Amino acid sequence: MRIALFQGASKPLDVPGNLEHLQHQAHLAAQRGAQLLVCPEMFLSGYNIGLDAVQRLAEADDGPSAMAVVEIAQAQRIAIAYGYPERAEDGTLYNSVQLIDAHGRSLCNYRKTHLFGELDRSMFSPGPDHFPVVEMDGWKLSLLICYDIEFPENARRLALAGAELLLVPTANMTPYDFTCQVTVRSRAQENQCYLVYANHCGAEGDVQYCGQSSIIGPDGSLLAMAGQDECLLLADVERERVVRGREAFPYLADLRQDLHRR
Amino acid sequence: MRIALFQGASKPLDVPGNLEHLQHQAHLAAQRGAQLLVCPEMFLSGYNIGLDAVQRLAEADDGPSAMAVVEIAQAQRIAIAYGYPERAEDGTLYNSVQLIDAHGRSLCNYRKTHLFGELDRSMFSPGPDHFPVVEMDGWKLSLLICYDIEFPENARRLALAGAELLLVPTANMTPYDFTCQVTVRSRAQENQCYLVYANHCGAEGDVQYCGQSSIIGPDGSLLAMAGQDECLLLADVERERVVRGREAFPYLADLRQDLHRR
Repeated sequence: MRIALFQGASKPLDVPGNLEHLQHQAHLAAQRGAQLLVCPEMFLSGYNIGLDAVQRLAEADDGPSAMAVVEIAQAQRIAIAYGYPERAEDGTLYNSVQLIDAHGRSLCNYRKTHLFGELDRSMFSPGPDHFPVVEMDGWKLSLLICYDIEFPENARRLALAGAELLLVPTANMTPYDFTCQVTVRSRAQENQCYLVYANHCGAEGDVQYCGQSSIIGPDGSLLAMAGQDECLLLADVERERVVRGREAFPYLADLRQDLHRR
Repeated sequence: MRIALFQGASKPLDVPGNLEHLQHQAHLAAQRGAQLLVCPEMFLSGYNIGLDAVQRLAEADDGPSAMAVVEIAQAQRIAIAYGYPERAEDGTLYNSVQLIDAHGRSLCNYRKTHLFGELDRSMFSPGPDHFPVVEMDGWKLSLLICYDIEFPENARRLALAGAELLLVPTANMTPYDFTCQVTVRSRAQENQCYLVYANHCGAEGDVQYCGQSSIIGPDGSLLAMAGQDECLLLADVERERVVRGREAFPYLADLRQDLHRR
């Protein structure tokens, strides 16, 4: 499977403009043979937008913006993982990522469980205990969002549940470059999973995003890594590498879960 | 506190020779102002020595070699963490590390819980559910051994129990350089702990050690890192950096333990 990662600046508060941008990137990614496009956290609305804007722009996971992404996925025959502000049925606001497959079906909607500082907490409620693993094109995929990946427990739980490919939209900023450079590589390797870490770049209000998005192999190697500018990264992933990796590095088998379930 | 890390080749099967080597390094470390010396896994006997040799050389945690280390620690007024093959009271063989303080008291004896492949399993039993955190010179210290650090659960458990400084004797070999270069930095940063990763270098039988020992700050920065040769690394550690680090990166506070205790 070929994966495309879009690193870019979303236009704050401009959902139609960002959908247009998404359509363009999906077209480019499909032209280059990608079956999956991964976009940053809160890409549809911008991230550093404040509670009032989130209240105004949040939508259901099958709202009009989701329907627009379904149309893009169907038209370009490409699966799309994208971040957006979600309003649940009970009105709760979540920082969410949805995965739409190339047929336009929603495979997965994940609500960020580990909120980052006041920035997240001023806008969102923490997601519930729901860490889905879904199948697509013979792969087992899962979603995490930004700060979630900095806690080894989240990726580990998904890997133990079978995940082979972790899609991690993010909005990571200066001075947290360490996560881009070290943490995500360790997460991929310690779980023998592919990991796609799709970040914003540029500035948004007082936030300077640090770019450095990456697609990482199950051995922790960088298959593709962005700098600070907008770009579309591409990498081919092979399930055989996960299988071979888990034989060579049997962390999931060797972990003594009995010791740490207290 | 100043920490010294000895990266070196131990002389296989030559416990008196390795104790002499340890005494020399402890002297050098103390001369340079260190209060703690950390040596590699199984330093007293060599690591890749096989079951027969382990059966012959294994000692109790208060056996003659431990008493020799106590004397070195007292004479040089330096705490010493060292790896050795341990025979427990019931005869079980463990891959252990002991921490002797500068007064010659045993503060901690840890038995490797996560055994590495056939190499470890052919010689040792896995350690029990015992992950101590001990106090020394105002610091909370813990021990892990080699493969243990590659599982995030082990370091996390210690950090949640209060550890601020993780001492990790190791015998890490080619082609597992990733652990030296990436994993240990992630472990330190995700737990906001100092981490001392003390490796062998050179060859031992068919094993080529990869050196690259390091002393890592709670922000994941490399305070000191070795190459492939024998050396004594030195670094000053400050508790204030742990305290400030845990304010800036409140992973331990932000972790939603409720989600992952199933």
